[in-house]
Amino acid sequence: MNSSNLKSSITTLLNGSGQVMFQQNSWTGALFLCGIFYGACECRMPQVAWGAVIGLISATLAGIMTERKEDSGPQGLWGFNGILVGCVFPTFLSNTWGMWATLIFCSMLSTWTRTAMNRVMESRGINSLTFPFVMLTWIFLLAARTMHGFTPETLPAPELKSHFSFSLDTSIPALVTYWLKGISQVFLINSPAAGTIFLAGIAVNSRRAAIYAAAASAIALAVAIAFQADPHAIANGLFGYSPVLTGIAMGYVFTSYNLKSAIWAMTAIIATVFVQAATNMLLAPLGLPALTAPFCFTTWLFLLPGYRFFVKQQ
Amino acid sequence: MNSSNLKSSITTLLNGSGQVMFQQNSWTGALFLCGIFYGACECRMPQVAWGAVIGLISATLAGIMTERKEDSGPQGLWGFNGILVGCVFPTFLSNTWGMWATLIFCSMLSTWTRTAMNRVMESRGINSLTFPFVMLTWIFLLAARTMHGFTPETLPAPELKSHFSFSLDTSIPALVTYWLKGISQVFLINSPAAGTIFLAGIAVNSRRAAIYAAAASAIALAVAIAFQADPHAIANGLFGYSPVLTGIAMGYVFTSYNLKSAIWAMTAIIATVFVQAATNMLLAPLGLPALTAPFCFTTWLFLLPGYRFFVKQQ
Amino acid sequence: MNSSNLKSSITTLLNGSGQVMFQQNSWTGALFLCGIFYGACECRMPQVAWGAVIGLISATLAGIMTERKEDSGPQGLWGFNGILVGCVFPTFLSNTWGMWATLIFCSMLSTWTRTAMNRVMESRGINSLTFPFVMLTWIFLLAARTMHGFTPETLPAPELKSHFSFSLDTSIPALVTYWLKGISQVFLINSPAAGTIFLAGIAVNSRRAAIYAAAASAIALAVAIAFQADPHAIANGLFGYSPVLTGIAMGYVFTSYNLKSAIWAMTAIIATVFVQAATNMLLAPLGLPALTAPFCFTTWLFLLPGYRFFVKQQ
Repeated sequence: MNSSNLKSSITTLLNGSGQVMFQQNSWTGALFLCGIFYGACECRMPQVAWGAVIGLISATLAGIMTERKEDSGPQGLWGFNGILVGCVFPTFLSNTWGMWATLIFCSMLSTWTRTAMNRVMESRGINSLTFPFVMLTWIFLLAARTMHGFTPETLPAPELKSHFSFSLDTSIPALVTYWLKGISQVFLINSPAAGTIFLAGIAVNSRRAAIYAAAASAIALAVAIAFQADPHAIANGLFGYSPVLTGIAMGYVFTSYNLKSAIWAMTAIIATVFVQAATNMLLAPLGLPALTAPFCFTTWLFLLPGYRFFVKQQ
Repeated sequence: MNSSNLKSSITTLLNGSGQVMFQQNSWTGALFLCGIFYGACECRMPQVAWGAVIGLISATLAGIMTERKEDSGPQGLWGFNGILVGCVFPTFLSNTWGMWATLIFCSMLSTWTRTAMNRVMESRGINSLTFPFVMLTWIFLLAARTMHGFTPETLPAPELKSHFSFSLDTSIPALVTYWLKGISQVFLINSPAAGTIFLAGIAVNSRRAAIYAAAASAIALAVAIAFQADPHAIANGLFGYSPVLTGIAMGYVFTSYNLKSAIWAMTAIIATVFVQAATNMLLAPLGLPALTAPFCFTTWLFLLPGYRFFVKQQ
Repeated sequence: MNSSNLKSSITTLLNGSGQVMFQQNSWTGALFLCGIFYGACECRMPQVAWGAVIGLISATLAGIMTERKEDSGPQGLWGFNGILVGCVFPTFLSNTWGMWATLIFCSMLSTWTRTAMNRVMESRGINSLTFPFVMLTWIFLLAARTMHGFTPETLPAPELKSHFSFSLDTSIPALVTYWLKGISQVFLINSPAAGTIFLAGIAVNSRRAAIYAAAASAIALAVAIAFQADPHAIANGLFGYSPVLTGIAMGYVFTSYNLKSAIWAMTAIIATVFVQAATNMLLAPLGLPALTAPFCFTTWLFLLPGYRFFVKQQ
């Protein structure tokens, strides 16, 4: 491998990191990786950061092995599902050889599953977003409950959801923390500092996208508080990460720029909060996390009608 | 707004009411609303009737705001999902500002979701039926369990279904009551009188549709009793409303008129009863009602094969 | 009916038996039926074998009544879902008139559901495989829990899955037994002798398919043991039957013959084991068996990308 090949390989990988938030920009991807390493160390779970790197590389290799070069690889579209798989596995599963083996296998599957899903979806004008990551991770987390080879250490126990009382610190510094965690949780990182780094990473490539991400986390926070959702989830940013992705997708990536379109994106952001709450309840009896399913689902729902006012001229 | 506009707006709304049972007829729609008001007052839940009106108006407004005029609006296809959303929310959720806010939001979403789903389904020769209502209502009912802003007052608790003993009053007057409630439950109304009004409403527009509705409720009742289904559900018409809709859809709306086609509709009606029982069991651990999902699912299943003997010549 | 008609009817039925493992060969079908009768009697459940025959006949009759002759009937594509329905109902439900009535109804529905699903799937280059059987059986098993007319005698109770300790006899004769049961469980038969007969049945039509079936059961066994899956399920071949079907589908039916394609089939077989474990966990709270859903799901996932190296030239 000569130096030009090496450089293009690194660009492909960094783009894969950036594409988690739809940014095809190596600097964005590099900042995202910095944020992941910073946040993972802050939470004393460095294995999450290494998982991210290994997932990113495995998924990209799977693309190189099966797809044609001129395909979506260099834009980073092979890696973004894999990096998310790599963040989730060490977060919820114990640190065994079985966890690392399935992390690699699942990351590779995510690239092939993306191609499979896009084949079905693209004729409808939508794509699979991060759903390959979501579906495959659910499968392996469920399997881990019944296979001692990789065990669900910190995965919540399956239970019929009980009640909670609503009490939340709503001082300004607390709210800012929740708001930033809403952004950092896109990578399953629970750290306001990492959230700041991710926001900076987006801004490097697109100020518009960064504004939508920031606004989405704030709107989602307001809706979750107004409707008195689970305060523990609010405080950890768990009502923010899906709306952040919906915001970037509907405000920056897939729609044209005009007032009606902005209102449409806003509506989608609000809807995502309710879909997030519903998904949490739906998965509670299975002990599964919602991951980014609420973002995928809501974005498909708001893109499919194809109303003229938001469809991009191409 | 001049008087001609007003008149056409009212027609649009009444058609939206009628379209719940596939009848594009203002008089039918008006009778349905009468039945809803009568039944809701009989059950001492007038908020259900007001919810129906607000849901109908919100969903229709959502259509006016986003769709083109010549689209399905005037036929009432914007409103029928919304009126059902409006019946369900006050039935299961407590009477708070959060309930009314989400009722309006969910009704508007139902119009957009209908367009989204139809985009996917119409190339297959089917349409979304009342599934936008079903899916969105499930989402908001699930969310209500984990958001104190709107709380599930009368929603059944999530539970692993326990056993029951089969004992049912099968005298003729009791059976007639179950049969009429099977029709009234289409709008979540538990009242034989309302069932009679709904049946009259259908007959105003189409005697054939009314016959199919009446026959479907009777057949479903017979199958449910023969297979000794949950007697509490039978007595409240909960095995009837989905087959009633399947009956109208398969016997009157989507298929041609001949003997084989009538047998096909009959088969679909019987299948709906089992799908209803299965859906009840599937949703019990989540504490969710089946709504009209069994009707949608079975109707899709029986339309998709596209056999020549039932496909309408157009 | 003259003797030529009779002969072609019997061929149609036997092909329906053979098509469960993708073999359009009357001798294969006859051997499969022998294996079913042998295994059912060994397990003292002869009603399973009679159920298989009745399901096969009902499903084929449903095809004759609704489809055109030149359609997939003679190849046995009407019967294979029905024979599986017929194996499952007497295995899990008690021996009542309601069980036999729904067995016949569900078998007939399986033929129509196959046509319905294929209409949707065929434009994507996939088909419904055994999913009509899976979906309908789930519906009727769920319904049986809430209808006393046919009751779930030996269906596992719905429960939130508890833990188990991993201990498994891994002597060579034990492993051979698990491996053969992995093949026999395709028809829900728990018998190594029946597994041998089924393997012989496949070999009669295609040695390649037999090798893939044998290899798939072995690979699945190895993966399940390496990841320490539920030992009770391993010992009864319940991690084998889905990979066996995936192996035949990906190694013999739907892909071209070359090294890369064989590696792809191997990957699919391994993935099926994890999907099987996940499906078991997903369905545990509902008390439903996974049936062949893991095979259907994984095969779709690996066929959909349509990579050039495995797509059959036609």
